Amino acid sequence: MPLPRDYTAQQCSLARTLEVVGERWTLLILRDAFYGARRFGEFARTGIPRAVLTDRLNHMVDAGLLERVGSAPRGHYGLTAKGISLWPTVYTLMAWGDEHYAPGGPRRIFVHAGDGGSLGPTGACELCGAVVPVGDILVTPGPGLEPPAPDEHPVNVALRSPHRLLEPLLGEPVAAEG
Amino acid sequence: MPLPRDYTAQQCSLARTLEVVGERWTLLILRDAFYGARRFGEFARTGIPRAVLTDRLNHMVDAGLLERVGSAPRGHYGLTAKGISLWPTVYTLMAWGDEHYAPGGPRRIFVHAGDGGSLGPTGACELCGAVVPVGDILVTPGPGLEPPAPDEHPVNVALRSPHRLLEPLLGEPVAAEG
Repeated sequence: MPLPRDYTAQQCSLARTLEVVGERWTLLILRDAFYGARRFGEFARTGIPRAVLTDRLNHMVDAGLLERVGSAPRGHYGLTAKGISLWPTVYTLMAWGDEHYAPGGPRRIFVHAGDGGSLGPTGACELCGAVVPVGDILVTPGPGLEPPAPDEHPVNVALRSPHRLLEPLLGEPVAAEG
Repeated sequence: MPLPRDYTAQQCSLARTLEVVGERWTLLILRDAFYGARRFGEFARTGIPRAVLTDRLNHMVDAGLLERVGSAPRGHYGLTAKGISLWPTVYTLMAWGDEHYAPGGPRRIFVHAGDGGSLGPTGACELCGAVVPVGDILVTPGPGLEPPAPDEHPVNVALRSPHRLLEPLLGEPVAAEG
């Protein structure tokens, strides 16, 4: 596991956190888990090479961010409470990117399911002011979302409709029998 | 500049953000800039190799996170508004690490200067509930902070007392003359 060993002299929590989530692709996989991706093939939609995806998923299970449910070929991955508690980080990274690198507007808009308010840059609802729990957030298409491609990945198709975070995007996976 | 080119197929703001802040050390340098580090030698306290630090600082200036004030040997670096807007990300990463990787408690505790309340995991003050602006936050020593070393770096010495974020840790650097 290629951990960034240069960091080991660093006692601070930020350095330790970056050892866990700072590897390339890890935060993108985590984002897709929040969107409701569960199966290997769903995480593969990002274009991550399969061998790297296998490595990252194993690393994330070892670190306690994901848990494996069932086994191949029907196994899937679910976020643990520890993984879910990374939502503020994933959200603030996305919000910062939307502010600075999305000239056509964000591709996704996050909405407080309870009152329909959009989330602001810190994750607070712009209507009621509450910091919205992950399970009460809808991911909805934004103005920057590109038009559908003919061969669009099923995960991308599913994300063209409002979807509640953490709920499986493509239906509940079936755990392996026996 | 070794950007993670694997990400280029990714349209999303998270992928673009990781191109800017996802390189090893960048978030640690950013954290120190929030603490009030300004000069090259102050950022070097993390143990980052000097050539890598030079590269990362240049990258961060190019990306608009830092601005250079004056020139060597007296030049220093200041956070831009774009850089400051990464505070929620830096803070939530640290808070997550403190929750999961700090058995002796956090090394630093962040406090709302206005009312003395500690910040919770999303950056909201636990007394008044407000999401505290960066300039109203004090970084203070926490229970996990190790005892002073005899040859402690001046930045670490300064951080043993409460210090307001963004204010220079070691006094205002002098810009180059002429």
